[in-house]
Amino acid sequence: MKKNNQPLILITNDDGINSPGIESLKNALTPLGEVVIVAPESQKSAVSSALTINKPLRVIPYKKNGNLFGYSVNGTPVDCVKIAISTLLDRKPDLVVSGINHGRNTSINVLYSGTVAGAAEGLIAGINSIAVSHASHNIESNLDGAEIFTHILARKLLNVSNKQKVLLNVNVPDLPSMKIKGVRLTKLSSSRWADKYEKRQDPFGNEYFWFAGEFITADNTPDTDDSAVNDGYISVSSVNFNMYDDSFNDFVELESLNHEYEDKYRRN
Amino acid sequence: MKKNNQPLILITNDDGINSPGIESLKNALTPLGEVVIVAPESQKSAVSSALTINKPLRVIPYKKNGNLFGYSVNGTPVDCVKIAISTLLDRKPDLVVSGINHGRNTSINVLYSGTVAGAAEGLIAGINSIAVSHASHNIESNLDGAEIFTHILARKLLNVSNKQKVLLNVNVPDLPSMKIKGVRLTKLSSSRWADKYEKRQDPFGNEYFWFAGEFITADNTPDTDDSAVNDGYISVSSVNFNMYDDSFNDFVELESLNHEYEDKYRRN
Repeated sequence: MKKNNQPLILITNDDGINSPGIESLKNALTPLGEVVIVAPESQKSAVSSALTINKPLRVIPYKKNGNLFGYSVNGTPVDCVKIAISTLLDRKPDLVVSGINHGRNTSINVLYSGTVAGAAEGLIAGINSIAVSHASHNIESNLDGAEIFTHILARKLLNVSNKQKVLLNVNVPDLPSMKIKGVRLTKLSSSRWADKYEKRQDPFGNEYFWFAGEFITADNTPDTDDSAVNDGYISVSSVNFNMYDDSFNDFVELESLNHEYEDKYRRN
Repeated sequence: MKKNNQPLILITNDDGINSPGIESLKNALTPLGEVVIVAPESQKSAVSSALTINKPLRVIPYKKNGNLFGYSVNGTPVDCVKIAISTLLDRKPDLVVSGINHGRNTSINVLYSGTVAGAAEGLIAGINSIAVSHASHNIESNLDGAEIFTHILARKLLNVSNKQKVLLNVNVPDLPSMKIKGVRLTKLSSSRWADKYEKRQDPFGNEYFWFAGEFITADNTPDTDDSAVNDGYISVSSVNFNMYDDSFNDFVELESLNHEYEDKYRRN
């Protein structure tokens, strides 16, 4: 098969190009097509959809064991996906996959996560996308289950022709692949961060703060992402960033806003 | 009136504490209650909901003309709102207002914007919030219209008791306040970034890239935020970050995912 008749799969992450998770993704996806990795040169956790506009980006070939592994970028996951699709790749990818993140990205973490943001950028570009996270922060965890399932889900997405593209957010429990109980299609749970900052003093006596928030799993209904992972299931949530909401219309009347604005500037 | 019987209003932005826009917000909101400003020490445009977890934050009192103006933080708008609500303030704010941003935050920019992210953090904390942006990037623009309208809208939000809190994203056209035609309640337009990176060489002959994307106003239906601003109206959109979407269920069957996963790990 000619190389560029194959599906093109773009991989990114937020843990950095040297993280074990991204190597697992490469293993999972290489059998399915041509794989190109464009990922941050260093750890970019919790960068959300941050975009670099005020400094130059460097794109550097990155080798592992003497072979080209991918390209590192001194930016965020969103930068990586934007520069790959617009500038580096010779054609539009058929799939964008971000991860495998070391640590779950459930509930509100979908908003803060750089891993999910990388996949969201694929969706925004009109490409089916997957974000994959593993429930353990231990970078030596066994990622077999995540690797197997990502392969299955990616193959599925490469074989559908859905007009409305999707972003699938996958969270895999920290269990050996054969102990994982199965898959659940889930909603985002209502878990939240209990924000906390520890106040400390530096060696010069100046005050500083470390973020020391705690993630509170608040929601125990079985149809949520957190419950699935806690119960030993792989969670798959479909997410979007449409963000529009009409709840405002319930209690603020346009007419009164208009009148008040007119009254006010006339008096100004 | 005792000071802490007044409503407490938290102000942040993404252009930095020294930007003219945040001073306009202070003017607009000071008549409505006790105002506290906690804002990034420097420009943080396009940082989205990025959260600083890997470095210490410094909170420094910031003076203007010899008087305390607010507190600067070496972080993002989300950091500012989180540390203010959890650590710095003596009570929960009644309103969070972010801006006034120099440059519109319409359509997909709601996702990338640090200004909107600051307000979104208020919403996540269960507080009515407003993000205010002005259509011009010129920091010497006349912000009177934005200032007047923010005062009106903030007063309105301080006087409703909505259980489901809202985030109102306001965009103000670059016109003198009396030339603004009125207010529209809008949806997010489908405008998009046409991503582009300029390839250049540094003085040492090494390649680098600048983001040079162009914002394409694609949508001309009058009910969108971009159309409102283009037509000379103040745009108010209600947005949320619920992000859940059930479109996936249309074309991937849970049963088959489960079967394929089982088949696969057994063969592994």
